[in-house]
Amino acid sequence: MSDGQVEDSQQEPAEESGDVKVAALEDRLLRLAADFENYKKRAAREREAYVTLANERLIGELLPILDDLERALVAATEHEEAQLEEGVRLVHRSLAGVLERQGVTAIETDGRFDPHVHEALLSQPSEAEEGSVLDVVQKGYRLGDRVVRPARVVVAAPIEQQ
Amino acid sequence: MSDGQVEDSQQEPAEESGDVKVAALEDRLLRLAADFENYKKRAAREREAYVTLANERLIGELLPILDDLERALVAATEHEEAQLEEGVRLVHRSLAGVLERQGVTAIETDGRFDPHVHEALLSQPSEAEEGSVLDVVQKGYRLGDRVVRPARVVVAAPIEQQ
Repeated sequence: MSDGQVEDSQQEPAEESGDVKVAALEDRLLRLAADFENYKKRAAREREAYVTLANERLIGELLPILDDLERALVAATEHEEAQLEEGVRLVHRSLAGVLERQGVTAIETDGRFDPHVHEALLSQPSEAEEGSVLDVVQKGYRLGDRVVRPARVVVAAPIEQQ
Repeated sequence: MSDGQVEDSQQEPAEESGDVKVAALEDRLLRLAADFENYKKRAAREREAYVTLANERLIGELLPILDDLERALVAATEHEEAQLEEGVRLVHRSLAGVLERQGVTAIETDGRFDPHVHEALLSQPSEAEEGSVLDVVQKGYRLGDRVVRPARVVVAAPIEQQ
């Protein structure tokens, strides 16, 4: 496009070409500014729509799980224990699958206490290396890089020498 | 590249003020276009962040349900039937509560078939009024005003007179 402008200025008489060029540029500037404004408005609307849509998709995946739970409840009421058990396993697999597809992963708890992803509920004198995780009271989870919930753990403290 | 053009045009004798104006406008145009581009990129990033955040909140509510399911699985493995049953009831209540707080409501199926919210799986000759819902095969749900899943129903057809 800038090549085109350069050629124009060479062909047309100097003064007129300058005015024409200025007018054309001012016009382009106005149009671009208007496009920018419209884009901003649309982006704000879209952001809201995306949130709704994202939630809707996740909610849509949870409905079959609610169905399975309701079937499990029927089995419980009718004391069909095997069916109830199978139902719970199914529901667990489904919910774990939904969360996995959302990018949720369990926080590892093998090894040393890590304050970024673990929460120490208790430190307990132990033969294990000081600062190692002895027990997991509640599992922790990440969503992508972010910690959604830290793992609640028991941490090894040194045994006091008496 | 545009800087080069501006310098070239300044060296030429003709219409200096016009050239300066053109150069200034071209500069503004380039800046605005660059701002626009940056805005677009930022908007795309923000849109993703919003979706992640919205999902994160919902996912955070699902984690305790996964915990309860895991406890129910332990009860199942240990054949503690009463505990298993109680666990399933708890999980059902929790998941129903999460969905309710998200704005999910069950689609009503008392009364006439409504193609906007019902899906007819079958029409069955019946004494009931033609077009009334006889049975619900799968519950349907709304999220706010939107149908996330229509209710799958059996609809009453007139009994053929022979």
